Amino acid sequence: MTAPNPQLDSHGRLCHLLTTEGLPASILQAILDTAGSFLTVNAREVKKVPLLRGKSVFNLFFEPSTRTRTTFEIAAKRLSADVVNLTVATSSQTKGETLLDTVANLSAMHADMFVVRHSQSGAAHLIARHVGAGIHVINAGDGRHAHPTQALLDMYTIRHYKGDFRRLRVAIVGDILHSRVARSEIHALTTLGVPEVRVIAPRTLLPMQVERLGVSVWQDMARGLEDVDVVMMLRLQNERMNGALLPSAQEYFRAYGLTPEKLARARPDAIVMHPGPMNRGVEIDSAVADGRQSVILPQVTFGIAVRMAVMSILAGQVEP
Amino acid sequence: MTAPNPQLDSHGRLCHLLTTEGLPASILQAILDTAGSFLTVNAREVKKVPLLRGKSVFNLFFEPSTRTRTTFEIAAKRLSADVVNLTVATSSQTKGETLLDTVANLSAMHADMFVVRHSQSGAAHLIARHVGAGIHVINAGDGRHAHPTQALLDMYTIRHYKGDFRRLRVAIVGDILHSRVARSEIHALTTLGVPEVRVIAPRTLLPMQVERLGVSVWQDMARGLEDVDVVMMLRLQNERMNGALLPSAQEYFRAYGLTPEKLARARPDAIVMHPGPMNRGVEIDSAVADGRQSVILPQVTFGIAVRMAVMSILAGQVEP
Amino acid sequence: MTAPNPQLDSHGRLCHLLTTEGLPASILQAILDTAGSFLTVNAREVKKVPLLRGKSVFNLFFEPSTRTRTTFEIAAKRLSADVVNLTVATSSQTKGETLLDTVANLSAMHADMFVVRHSQSGAAHLIARHVGAGIHVINAGDGRHAHPTQALLDMYTIRHYKGDFRRLRVAIVGDILHSRVARSEIHALTTLGVPEVRVIAPRTLLPMQVERLGVSVWQDMARGLEDVDVVMMLRLQNERMNGALLPSAQEYFRAYGLTPEKLARARPDAIVMHPGPMNRGVEIDSAVADGRQSVILPQVTFGIAVRMAVMSILAGQVEP
Repeated sequence: MTAPNPQLDSHGRLCHLLTTEGLPASILQAILDTAGSFLTVNAREVKKVPLLRGKSVFNLFFEPSTRTRTTFEIAAKRLSADVVNLTVATSSQTKGETLLDTVANLSAMHADMFVVRHSQSGAAHLIARHVGAGIHVINAGDGRHAHPTQALLDMYTIRHYKGDFRRLRVAIVGDILHSRVARSEIHALTTLGVPEVRVIAPRTLLPMQVERLGVSVWQDMARGLEDVDVVMMLRLQNERMNGALLPSAQEYFRAYGLTPEKLARARPDAIVMHPGPMNRGVEIDSAVADGRQSVILPQVTFGIAVRMAVMSILAGQVEP
Repeated sequence: MTAPNPQLDSHGRLCHLLTTEGLPASILQAILDTAGSFLTVNAREVKKVPLLRGKSVFNLFFEPSTRTRTTFEIAAKRLSADVVNLTVATSSQTKGETLLDTVANLSAMHADMFVVRHSQSGAAHLIARHVGAGIHVINAGDGRHAHPTQALLDMYTIRHYKGDFRRLRVAIVGDILHSRVARSEIHALTTLGVPEVRVIAPRTLLPMQVERLGVSVWQDMARGLEDVDVVMMLRLQNERMNGALLPSAQEYFRAYGLTPEKLARARPDAIVMHPGPMNRGVEIDSAVADGRQSVILPQVTFGIAVRMAVMSILAGQVEP
Repeated sequence: MTAPNPQLDSHGRLCHLLTTEGLPASILQAILDTAGSFLTVNAREVKKVPLLRGKSVFNLFFEPSTRTRTTFEIAAKRLSADVVNLTVATSSQTKGETLLDTVANLSAMHADMFVVRHSQSGAAHLIARHVGAGIHVINAGDGRHAHPTQALLDMYTIRHYKGDFRRLRVAIVGDILHSRVARSEIHALTTLGVPEVRVIAPRTLLPMQVERLGVSVWQDMARGLEDVDVVMMLRLQNERMNGALLPSAQEYFRAYGLTPEKLARARPDAIVMHPGPMNRGVEIDSAVADGRQSVILPQVTFGIAVRMAVMSILAGQVEP
C-alpha cells in the first residue's frame, strides 16, 4: 500500500496544489481545460466572476517575490476573493513564532486558501498537513523543490501552441540543479505523455541522477536542441553567475545562452519559453526573447488563467 | 465635573475605541453581543456583509505588525469596506511631516475610519482629538498604554467559555510592566465585574502601584494560579529576555512559564489564553499551548468577529 | 508636421496622462468638470461607483511614496477597480529585469491601467510608448519632469476658489529647479489662460531660461507676492536644506518661507496652496499653513476627485 497523495482528498479530488509530481494526467488536463474558460474572462471588459466571493485568500510569502505574488493576487481578485498579502519577514516570524503557529493563527481567522512561497523545500507540504479541512494550500515555490503553477502554465502554453503532448520533443535548458521550475516541468511533461524530454546544462548545474526522472542529458546545447518542438529556458540566478559553479555570465551565455544560431537547430516552428524574469544576454539573447518564436508573454497571460483555474477547482466552485 | 470621555459622543455612543479604561460595562457587553452575530458570518460559505460598503478604512501602522494589521484588514474586508494599508516609516513621516499632518491629509481623502498602531502611548488619543466628526479611530496598540480590541476579544473568549464574569477568578501572568494588553485586560475585567484579578510577575516586571488598578499581586506563580478559572498569559518581548530586568529566558520559564504542573494548581476546567505570538518554551510550554485547556486559537477566531463588531458599531451600522 | 501628442489617440481623445505640457485647454477643463461630479461621490455615505468594475489598476512605484500611492489607490477603489500595489525595489528590478520587461509582463496579465512613479524623468512616457492599445498610463511623478495629477488638482482648487483663470495673478514659490510639480503647474496655468505667472526663488533653485515657459522671475519674495491671487508653495526637499545650493533651512525660511507678514503683500483674498508634505518652519509658517487663507486640505480632497476623473476618462467610462 502506498502513502496517500497529500494533494488529493479521499474521493481523489484535488485539495491542495503542492507539486506536479504524482498528480494524475486527468487532473493536470482538467486544470488546463478549466484555465481555457478563464482566458475568456480575462479578455472581457469586466474581468471578474463571483466564484470566490466572500472567500479569504492569504498570500503568505516568506520569501519576497513581487511578480509571483501579483499573479496570484490578480487571479484571486478576478475571482472576487478577499486577498490579504503577508510578507512574513518583518512580522511574527522574526518575533520567534513558528511557521505552524503563524499558519494556525491565520487559519483561525477562517482562511480559505493559502498561497505559500518559502525558501525551504517542503514548506507548503508541511503547511498542508496541518491546516484544517476546507483550507486549501497552493505552493507558489518552495526552495529547490516545486513550483507547480509555473509548470501548469507552461503545459497550458505547450498545449495551446503544439496540441498533442504525445508527439513532442521538449528541451529544458539551464540551471536544472537549483530550479524548482525545472523539476515541476519534468514531472508534468512526463505525466502528460511527452515522449522525449531533454535537459541541457553544464555538469555543475545538473542534479545527481537526473536521468531517473525520465529525461536525457545533453551538455552540448546545439546538439541538444536538434529537432525539438519546445525550448524551455531557465533563469540563471544572479548568485550563480560568478560563483564556483560557473566561470562567468559571458561564458555561460556562449555555451548555454539561447541565440538565433542555436535556436536554428530546433524545428522551424519550435516555441521558446522562459518563466521570467529574464536575464537578457545571459541565458537568452534579446533577438530570441523578442523574436517570432517567443511565447514568453503569452505564458504570463495563460498564467493568470491557470491560477484562476487552480483556485476555483480547489474551492470546489468548478467541477474539473 | 469630570472631563468628557473622549470615546463617547454627546449622546453617550461609542465614537472611538481608544482604551477599555473608562468604558461603561454596558458598552463592553454590547460589543461582545454584536461580535456574537458576526461569528456566524465568518463561518459562512460567503463571509461577507455589506455593512461598510463604500467606506474607507485606513490601517495606519507607525509600528509594523503584520498579524494585527491582518486581523483588521480581514475584518474590514468582510464588512465590504475599502481598506488601505499604510505602514508609515518609509513615508511622509520620514519626510518630516507631523503625525497630525499625515492624519489631516488622510482625513481630507474622506476617510471613515483609522486603525492606528503606534509605538508611543497616547498616539491614538491624539489622533482622535483632531479628526473631524464622522471619522472614527480604533487604537490597535499604542506604546505600553492600551490595546482595547485585544482585551475585548479576550473578554469575548472568557464569556464564551465561562459565562458570568461575576463569579470568576482570573490570573494575568508575565511582563505586566511593558504590556498594553495587560492594562487593557485589567480595566475590562474589573469593569465587567470580575471579583478577583491576580497579576503574577517578578517584581522587575510589575508597574509601580499596580494594586491601585484593583488587582492582587503574586510573585509565586504556583500559588497565584491556585483555583483560578482563567489564566491569561502575556508574551515576553524578545528584548526583555536577556536584558537587565531578567536573568535569562530559561530562568524566566522556570519561574513564570506555564507548564502542565503549574497549570494543575488552577481549577480543572480553567482556560488558558495568550494574545500571540507565543514564545514556546519561554512563557508557555507547548504541552499547555496545544493542550485541552488552551483556547488560544479560538481567541483569534473571536478576534475577527470582535473587530467587525467594533467597526460596525463605530460606523453606526449596528445598533449596539 | 509636428510629432503626434503621445497622450492623445488618433481621435484626439486622452489615452495617457503623462504631462500637462501640450494638453489642450479643452481637455484640462474636461478633466476638471468631470472631477466636480466625483466630488459628490466622495461626500456620499457609500463612496463607490462601478465605473471601473473588473478593471485592473497597477500602482507601479519605482520610488516609494505612500501618500501618492494612497491617493491613487483610494481613487481606483472608489471606482470599483481591482488595485494591485507594486513597489518595485525588492522585486524583479533588483533581479536585473528591465523596466520594459516588467511592464510587458504586467500588461500580459491584462492590465488596464498603470499608475507610474519613477525617479527618472521620462519613465512614464517610455512605458506609454510600449504598452498595447487599451492600456492607459498615468504619470504619478517622474524625476524632475512632471506630476500632472498634482497640477490638475491644483487647477481644480484654483478654479473652485477663484473661478475664471483669465483674471488671475499666480505665484509659485520655492525650489523650481528640482520640482516636477512646478513644471506641471506652469504648463497648466499658461494653457488655461492665466495671464501672469510668477516664479519666486533664489537663483540657485531656478532652472536655466525659466522665462521661456512664460513666467516672470522674482528673487524678492515680498515683492513677488504683491497683489497675487494665488500663492503656490513648493516643498523644499530635505536633501537641499543643507546642501551646496542653500545656506541653511533657517536662512531659507527667512527669505522664502511663507509667513503672515509676507502673505500680507498678496491680495487679501489670496489662497495659499502646498502639494504636501509640508516642512513647517522651512517653506511655510504654521500660522499660514493652518490659517484662514490656506486651502491645503481641500487640495487633498479635490485630488481624489481629480484622480477618479482622470481614470474614468482614460478608461472611456466617462465622456469628457
